Amino acid sequence: MKINKNYYNLAESYLFSTIAKKVKAYSEANPDVNITKLGIGDVTLPLAPSVIDALHKAVEDQASASTFYGYGPEQGYDFLRQPIQEYYKKRGVDLDINEIFISDGAKSDIANIMDIMDNDNVVIMPDPVYPAYLDVNVMLGRKVLFTIGNKENGFKPLPDKSVKADIIYICSPNNPTGAVYNKEELKAWVDYALENKAIILFDAAYEKYISSDDLPRTIYEVEGARDCAIEICSLSKTAGFTGTRCGYTIVPKNLYGGDMNKMWVRRQTTKFNGTSYIVQRGAAAVFTEQGQKEIKEQVAYYMNNAHTIHDELTKAGIWHVGGVNSPYIWLEVPAGMTSWEYFDALLNEGHVVGTPGVGFGAHGEGFFRLTGFGNKEKTEEAIKRLVKVRR
Amino acid sequence: MKINKNYYNLAESYLFSTIAKKVKAYSEANPDVNITKLGIGDVTLPLAPSVIDALHKAVEDQASASTFYGYGPEQGYDFLRQPIQEYYKKRGVDLDINEIFISDGAKSDIANIMDIMDNDNVVIMPDPVYPAYLDVNVMLGRKVLFTIGNKENGFKPLPDKSVKADIIYICSPNNPTGAVYNKEELKAWVDYALENKAIILFDAAYEKYISSDDLPRTIYEVEGARDCAIEICSLSKTAGFTGTRCGYTIVPKNLYGGDMNKMWVRRQTTKFNGTSYIVQRGAAAVFTEQGQKEIKEQVAYYMNNAHTIHDELTKAGIWHVGGVNSPYIWLEVPAGMTSWEYFDALLNEGHVVGTPGVGFGAHGEGFFRLTGFGNKEKTEEAIKRLVKVRR
Repeated sequence: MKINKNYYNLAESYLFSTIAKKVKAYSEANPDVNITKLGIGDVTLPLAPSVIDALHKAVEDQASASTFYGYGPEQGYDFLRQPIQEYYKKRGVDLDINEIFISDGAKSDIANIMDIMDNDNVVIMPDPVYPAYLDVNVMLGRKVLFTIGNKENGFKPLPDKSVKADIIYICSPNNPTGAVYNKEELKAWVDYALENKAIILFDAAYEKYISSDDLPRTIYEVEGARDCAIEICSLSKTAGFTGTRCGYTIVPKNLYGGDMNKMWVRRQTTKFNGTSYIVQRGAAAVFTEQGQKEIKEQVAYYMNNAHTIHDELTKAGIWHVGGVNSPYIWLEVPAGMTSWEYFDALLNEGHVVGTPGVGFGAHGEGFFRLTGFGNKEKTEEAIKRLVKVRR
Repeated sequence: MKINKNYYNLAESYLFSTIAKKVKAYSEANPDVNITKLGIGDVTLPLAPSVIDALHKAVEDQASASTFYGYGPEQGYDFLRQPIQEYYKKRGVDLDINEIFISDGAKSDIANIMDIMDNDNVVIMPDPVYPAYLDVNVMLGRKVLFTIGNKENGFKPLPDKSVKADIIYICSPNNPTGAVYNKEELKAWVDYALENKAIILFDAAYEKYISSDDLPRTIYEVEGARDCAIEICSLSKTAGFTGTRCGYTIVPKNLYGGDMNKMWVRRQTTKFNGTSYIVQRGAAAVFTEQGQKEIKEQVAYYMNNAHTIHDELTKAGIWHVGGVNSPYIWLEVPAGMTSWEYFDALLNEGHVVGTPGVGFGAHGEGFFRLTGFGNKEKTEEAIKRLVKVRR
């Protein structure tokens, strides 16, 4: 048996394990110091009351033969697909229900969707980037190109027409940078994709954090996107489902004259047995009027933290993107330190933990990621300590 | 963008849609006839009380910030891996906890495990076969060989040393045939795998249906299996999790000197975010003393149906395998009918629905699948009608 040797080309990431080790060592040496984690990538608020009620009710369904749900449709139940269809309609996007696929989260489908595309495709993605995008393609032995995010383009790289790529990764609002593409910028990518007969994989996991009404929350608000884009979304950050696991993927019927939609149905019916019935019931509650009200309050809580960070950085004259329409803040490390030097200084002097930008790619060097997912009071105190660490 | 053209080599299966259409047409023409489905592949009993309690409790955990679970370990929580480790220990199999991976079901991992193996491998599987095994490999463009199951070998094909294969699929107790390998037969496959440096993918989804203590319930009861076999298991049929979704996969550290275990960790951390916390809590309840007692009663209920079918077929002199140590029964179609001719005769004369064996491969022609997953009283009545349909 031959193993998949592409795995040997994966770069080992010690980003989060190194962070954990450094924090542990500091805590042990300084047991009286309270450290605030401003780099947390997980949610901290519990599930919304409507979701909890729906989950309990679904568990009860499974307790009696007359209401028991066994194997469900691999594409997801219509009781969840319909509200998602209506959710898109509110943004002016008309989806066929058979274009909507329920998943156990965005991370699975970002990888699984590759199944229907040939390994011999050139991929383009930003640097800095969410590491899974890169690793998934290295595992397939694909050629990967990068578009560079930097201060000049506000970490919103635009297509270079002289470069030819077949698969394009876009995440907006972006993780790790917090940058958000506007409609014209996304249109440039859609036009590039159409011209190159390329596919855009649009990661919309943070769409709920956009409050400016003129910014697109789905790529299908952009003309032409239904002919070239697959959208992958998640309830992890919008409704606290990081541990409960549910997302959805849109594969338009227009793509390749319907072939990709049909192939994805075949992939899912062969290699997946659907998301847990109980979880899908919980997810459906997110899209009710009361559910939307509740999760908007959660998002507002996190965005209040993000705004606090944004405001304090602005006052301190520290260059950054994000923190507006995004829970992530990407700041330029002061005084010419490296990302890791700043990490150490912040930990030792500010008692704040964040994420070194270099962990997301070479062009993240000199930058640093913070998030709004923490506690309000602690975030307010921590950001005041952070801006003082300047060397 | 180039799509994965291997998808065009997939055979479309109309097995279950054709069955549904025929049943619908008959029901509409004969509205007063009660049809019994003896071909059902899904469970019908609700989740066990212990599981329901654990699920409710886990939902409550998600309702409060102090007990909330966000992102969990991709490999699964130790509160579930530990009881699985102990479960194997009872069969004399000592697993390292890091050899145990929690999944959202066997179907996902039967496909996903291919990620760590090169596409250029020769696969061998039985005919008749669970169709997903074949489709997964066609999607990868792999060469697939078949070992033939037939009356002579009791649908338990043994390795042919003159044939060289790299990846071997074994499902025991088998779906669709209900045949169960004994230790010596499995040893022949393990020896073949070791000799050919091949990997066995052992699907143990029906292990709980084995009551004969001398039959192996895990392939690791066979000497040498830890050097060549990955075991994939599911709570779908053993604890009614078909709609709730949880399973587990064992990737021994011995395989390829640890490489495959490490690669699988890398695959899962990159392409999966773990099984729902709530579902894992429910699954953990299955492995408690009370949970085991409850699910044994469920398995006994289904096996009572299987025994009823087995006994009536035996009395009627209809050749079959399964129905003992397995919820599936695989019978020879009487009077030289084809599988589909028998299906039509059964539906029209016996008012019983089953699954034509030819739907599982060319060598399933002339055979027919029944299952014990139905209702006790209906099964008892239906099998009496079935044995009379002989032409």
